[in-house]
Amino acid sequence: MSTGDFLRPLQWRDGRLYCLDQRRLPQRQEEVACADVRAVAEAIREMVVRGAPAIGIAAAYGVALAARDRYGEDAAHWRQALEQDMQLLAATRPTAVNLFWALERMRARAAALEGDPFPSLLAEAQRIHEEDVAANQRMGELGAELIAQDPGAVLTHCNAGALATGGYGTALGVVRAACAQGSISTVYAGETRPWLQGARLTAWELIHDGIPVTLIAEGAAAHLLRGGEVRWVIVGADRIAANGDVANKIGTYGLAVAARHHGVGFMVVAPTSTIDPATPSGEAIPIECRAEAEVLCLAGRRVAATGARAWNPVFDVTPAGLVDVLVTEKGVIHRPDASRIASLLEASDEKMY
Amino acid sequence: MSTGDFLRPLQWRDGRLYCLDQRRLPQRQEEVACADVRAVAEAIREMVVRGAPAIGIAAAYGVALAARDRYGEDAAHWRQALEQDMQLLAATRPTAVNLFWALERMRARAAALEGDPFPSLLAEAQRIHEEDVAANQRMGELGAELIAQDPGAVLTHCNAGALATGGYGTALGVVRAACAQGSISTVYAGETRPWLQGARLTAWELIHDGIPVTLIAEGAAAHLLRGGEVRWVIVGADRIAANGDVANKIGTYGLAVAARHHGVGFMVVAPTSTIDPATPSGEAIPIECRAEAEVLCLAGRRVAATGARAWNPVFDVTPAGLVDVLVTEKGVIHRPDASRIASLLEASDEKMY
Repeated sequence: MSTGDFLRPLQWRDGRLYCLDQRRLPQRQEEVACADVRAVAEAIREMVVRGAPAIGIAAAYGVALAARDRYGEDAAHWRQALEQDMQLLAATRPTAVNLFWALERMRARAAALEGDPFPSLLAEAQRIHEEDVAANQRMGELGAELIAQDPGAVLTHCNAGALATGGYGTALGVVRAACAQGSISTVYAGETRPWLQGARLTAWELIHDGIPVTLIAEGAAAHLLRGGEVRWVIVGADRIAANGDVANKIGTYGLAVAARHHGVGFMVVAPTSTIDPATPSGEAIPIECRAEAEVLCLAGRRVAATGARAWNPVFDVTPAGLVDVLVTEKGVIHRPDASRIASLLEASDEKMY
Repeated sequence: MSTGDFLRPLQWRDGRLYCLDQRRLPQRQEEVACADVRAVAEAIREMVVRGAPAIGIAAAYGVALAARDRYGEDAAHWRQALEQDMQLLAATRPTAVNLFWALERMRARAAALEGDPFPSLLAEAQRIHEEDVAANQRMGELGAELIAQDPGAVLTHCNAGALATGGYGTALGVVRAACAQGSISTVYAGETRPWLQGARLTAWELIHDGIPVTLIAEGAAAHLLRGGEVRWVIVGADRIAANGDVANKIGTYGLAVAARHHGVGFMVVAPTSTIDPATPSGEAIPIECRAEAEVLCLAGRRVAATGARAWNPVFDVTPAGLVDVLVTEKGVIHRPDASRIASLLEASDEKMY
């Protein structure tokens, strides 16, 4: 498959990072141009860019922009100044580990550089970007093989698609590949309150690719799974702990519980950059809580009764024991646990665990 | 407790049924005046009135209005004409059995009448209304005793409150009684997409009574239950089959699965008029599917990507095996099943099963 024929939410052009504004989709397709690291940090914080892999890629470009500007300001002390910018990026959102992974990789690359760091750091950001797309395509193939063994309808949650990554998508990469092979009868997508990533983003990008999609309110998921049509729940991840616990969009954990209750396969699709060996288990993953207004309001208008409060955690943790299969670009792990994940990360070649 | 000191969504005044318009709450407190049976049917169909007990009560008043008008038109043949009006009411919504229960009770009362049927049928509708309020108060006491045995936070879903009944509420009647006794630390309420009964109605009526409420997106429920703060999930019911299977607002079943997974009590609160001995199990309960637009749009504006479809079942069925306790006005049933339910319905006095 060519890498140029699909949706890319992040594009480097004219010395800037252009981000498709995911707050405006699907009503408007607008780009936000980020000319410096502050603009990139704001784009991540304000969810112009969202999705763990996409956040990591954007941050990598942000580091390149920062290095260019810091080197221009003071060629002798750019490294120290760059570290401040890295901290700015690191403070944007707490849960997705790809952000910290990308910053670490850029930091390591920067450490080895002499002279103007910008060309090398831009090239590194572009490598991170292209590797992500390639990883997604490989995961799509691996996941589609699993679906072909138990074909039927699938249910996905939030948006783990092209829009959440460098392109093609993690969970939706598997959906794309399996649909191309004819293994999926219907794609169901949870609308994903409060931010409606399912209704706004997943529906938009699947329809963009000619894949029909049927939305459900989150509350309808267990009823759907009980009906027997759905064979797989397929989701992405924001951080996978060393023991296989998976942090992902709020609602994922409830789907995993319901999937196990009904004997429906629960598949997590994520590149190895989402696995954090330094996080021993899900309990150590910081869960971002966002503003109450995201729940209390709809389309900018308050709908909840005056005086009501809201609790708005935007991720949850699914224990490894509820994950039937983890699909990475390095291979597939059935029933992930600490030892299988360690073996995967150590392996240089792709294999099955 | 007096029966006049709380919210009543249905009021008989000046020869009309006034319905608090639940489509407009909480932004506007407006009544819809129903002067004839067609207006009552429309109010039920269009969800001006919603909630199984409230639908039954409204239908009973609708029958009284119909009898008045049919007797006025043709005193000799009002019974046959009234039967047509009953069918109009019966066709409004399929799932809540209280509708059919109330029509049956009004039909039986009408069968015995001579002369002008209106005074007797109005009195019967008012009895149904008052009995519902009294049942809710009794259920509140019984449910609060259970919560006092395992106090803490509770999670409710949709609106099974004063607004869904003649007054006081089923699930929220228990919440009211238990809060008055100090047994509940926090009331969480699912916002209840797509119609937002939780955010709009439950929050409004609890705050109206001075009970603080914290809303969550449905997707956050399993994560909340995992945290251990919540000791009870408390819901109402639209129809309970003879074997104890419970039809209620979409999302209830997923909460029951998650509650069992976490060892959290799952309590269903419903008057015996919600139990349908003629429905052997949940499989026989018709599940209403409403318009796709309810999911695809928010606040009247389309949010889902163009081309997306939606599946919008508005009820689901929770198997009796997931219900820890059923609270009725006749008594409490732990682990409901067909024989315990049959004993409850046969018993004239309240007891524990």
